[in-house]
Amino acid sequence: MPFIQMTMLAGRSVETKRELISKLNAAAAEVLGGDPARIRIALVEVTGDDWGIGGETFNDIQAKG
Amino acid sequence: MPFIQMTMLAGRSVETKRELISKLNAAAAEVLGGDPARIRIALVEVTGDDWGIGGETFNDIQAKG
Amino acid sequence: MPFIQMTMLAGRSVETKRELISKLNAAAAEVLGGDPARIRIALVEVTGDDWGIGGETFNDIQAKG
Amino acid sequence: MPFIQMTMLAGRSVETKRELISKLNAAAAEVLGGDPARIRIALVEVTGDDWGIGGETFNDIQAKG
Amino acid sequence: MPFIQMTMLAGRSVETKRELISKLNAAAAEVLGGDPARIRIALVEVTGDDWGIGGETFNDIQAKG
Amino acid sequence: MPFIQMTMLAGRSVETKRELISKLNAAAAEVLGGDPARIRIALVEVTGDDWGIGGETFNDIQAKG
Repeated sequence: MPFIQMTMLAGRSVETKRELISKLNAAAAEVLGGDPARIRIALVEVTGDDWGIGGETFNDIQAKG
Repeated sequence: MPFIQMTMLAGRSVETKRELISKLNAAAAEVLGGDPARIRIALVEVTGDDWGIGGETFNDIQAKG
Repeated sequence: MPFIQMTMLAGRSVETKRELISKLNAAAAEVLGGDPARIRIALVEVTGDDWGIGGETFNDIQAKG
Repeated sequence: MPFIQMTMLAGRSVETKRELISKLNAAAAEVLGGDPARIRIALVEVTGDDWGIGGETFNDIQAKG
Repeated sequence: MPFIQMTMLAGRSVETKRELISKLNAAAAEVLGGDPARIRIALVEVTGDDWGIGGETFNDIQAKG
Repeated sequence: MPFIQMTMLAGRSVETKRELISKLNAAAAEVLGGDPARIRIALVEVTGDDWGIGGETFNDIQAKG
């Protein structure tokens, strides 16, 4: 029954999202037991201008090389 | 003063969102009392590739019929 | 299938939480259609020292009368 | 760099939480690549009165057997 | 190590987001101490149809003037 | 009107929370303009067993020195 929200940078492929959802679900089900079908996951995508690391945006960090 | 975040599949109409916000607000205000004007709601929309149910994406479940 | 997270002040009664969960679920199901049994809700409770309104904690605002 | 928030029922053991954090981190790192040390996870625990499934609290569902 | 999620209306400029991330990070680091580089921030943008204030969407409130 | 949720380790003093709420509110208001009174902040506290960094709990990392 748990709910997992993963906040991450936008731009992953459909295949990557499929694997993320499959493997996060399997990991949670393995540890918690119970019915794996009851787990819900939302991937919340934010742009590189909306993601901050140590006070700088991801895009600015990338631009600096 | 409560804050409600509802995570849901993207693609609802403006009218559906308007109704959701109106009815969730009314439900919370009715139960909690206090000023209905102070409730905030955010609808966070995720695509069918970003929503997982039992380890599969919503889009993959739909594609299987 | 939506997930609702409601952040609110701690200290509501069991009966109030029961009503909140019942009425928020009914409101979402009425608007979105689909199976009401698939909606999940989490009430996240924070103390009056962890809740800020306009830069002041709820507890400080209460103390001022 | 992703952030994972998992909302779940309170009352898991320290060992279960340790395993959850270890396996969710490994799953995300395996799929996304990058440095596993950069992933952050928060387990947000809610009581059985704060968790709603289909409009009923977890505690009420349990009490009905 | 804290994680800050700020939910706000979409449409801010890159420069505004840069300033938000810089100043929220500085504020948290100043109060908490520790390494400012370890703070993560995500700006989650929602449209004016997805943002509710007192039961009305932001867009409807704007339209009424 | 933005909503800020800050997830952090439990155990900060009332005074630290007061400062966090005051300074995060001021930082957001300064950048976004608008009425500072309309900003809401929730500090969501998790224990050291519920906080994961690179796959280990905060408490386990602390115990290793």
